[in-house]
Amino acid sequence: MADVSAVKALVFDVFGTVVDWRTSLINDFTKWSKTRGIEADWTALVDGWRAVYVASMDEVRKHPERGYVILDVLHRRSLEKLVELHRIKGLTDADLDYLTTGWHRLHPWPDSVAGLTRLKTKYVISPLSNGNVALLTNMAKFARLPWDLIMSAELFEHYKPDPETYLGAAKLLCLPPEQVMMVAAHNGDLKHAQQNGLKTAFVARPTEYGPLQKVDFEATGDWDIVAKDFGAIADRMGC
Amino acid sequence: MADVSAVKALVFDVFGTVVDWRTSLINDFTKWSKTRGIEADWTALVDGWRAVYVASMDEVRKHPERGYVILDVLHRRSLEKLVELHRIKGLTDADLDYLTTGWHRLHPWPDSVAGLTRLKTKYVISPLSNGNVALLTNMAKFARLPWDLIMSAELFEHYKPDPETYLGAAKLLCLPPEQVMMVAAHNGDLKHAQQNGLKTAFVARPTEYGPLQKVDFEATGDWDIVAKDFGAIADRMGC
Repeated sequence: MADVSAVKALVFDVFGTVVDWRTSLINDFTKWSKTRGIEADWTALVDGWRAVYVASMDEVRKHPERGYVILDVLHRRSLEKLVELHRIKGLTDADLDYLTTGWHRLHPWPDSVAGLTRLKTKYVISPLSNGNVALLTNMAKFARLPWDLIMSAELFEHYKPDPETYLGAAKLLCLPPEQVMMVAAHNGDLKHAQQNGLKTAFVARPTEYGPLQKVDFEATGDWDIVAKDFGAIADRMGC
Repeated sequence: MADVSAVKALVFDVFGTVVDWRTSLINDFTKWSKTRGIEADWTALVDGWRAVYVASMDEVRKHPERGYVILDVLHRRSLEKLVELHRIKGLTDADLDYLTTGWHRLHPWPDSVAGLTRLKTKYVISPLSNGNVALLTNMAKFARLPWDLIMSAELFEHYKPDPETYLGAAKLLCLPPEQVMMVAAHNGDLKHAQQNGLKTAFVARPTEYGPLQKVDFEATGDWDIVAKDFGAIADRMGC
């Protein structure tokens, strides 16, 4: 087994790893749309929204001269295009705000809060997410995620998987990268964390993308921990 | 009474406002020095340390070309000079680390945790302190401060009372300044917060500097709230 005894802090990918964004958004929008009398295929909208996520961050990466743009703004821009594409009618500006902040109202996977609560007794725990600070803060209050602090790509003005995020998190914690463990349900995120010297823990979330899930059913790299859920990570970390 | 109904987040000065740094450090060092067999006038050291605090931050402000320097490093540099000045003998490098991280092990005033816990039910609560992120994170775990997130001068690479700190906090929260309330035991901090558009709450901490206290026995500005402790702030904010 990998030696994780030097780890002092665990940093977590959030969308998909800590919270079930897909089910949360579909349920939220379906329930809300009935009260608003708006008709739409919310599953298609949500899947389409997530499908353009990486491209929307690539735009920020390609145009540093335009400055960093937070995820709430990227979400809103993508939503406006998708609403047109899907011909969803009758949405006011306030409705678009409501839908955009749906990403603040995501429910945790069943094991997330209990696992984080155990890990917090012995380690510093923080998100390391592409969500902006306000998004992650509001989500933590909504989902009762017991973070010690909120670390976001916004603090580094770089989206994951840029090295500035992993190294920036370690720097803010005043820890060498090898004392920080990245926890994610995505092998790609862990690959970049590992390349930057962080320890790694994989947890499978095989229903994250629903029937559209194509990757990340299992660990595909040499990660320090491979666990079935956050409880198993807490076990392995001695909490 | 001032209208504070639009406030969504409260940000707190920490040293002196949330925690009693002076008593905490003197007690910690006195107890520790007995086990280490080190003799010193710890009260004089602690008072001297705090006395050079503002000057140490001014050095960072005067030399932007040297880059931002976190408070842990400023504390360590000041300590090394003071140890020489006070002729304290026998301190190892590990001892100097222990003393420096004394600023991470500060005890809250008796009303702090209960007041913060009440305020957290309805508002986002965060430090807005010159302490660095790791210092504030470690302190929160030590003192059980239930912050929603950790905001530090380090995130803005500017020390309070530079405007970048107050405005940077509002920006990270995605709130206009008038929806953010600064809570402090220091009239000067509140003056700058108010000048930058934040709401303000003063709480008197008349024993912060012990017998050396000269100012801040009472509110000297037109603050939105003047309270005797955090419980009274929670009352006023409807928690």
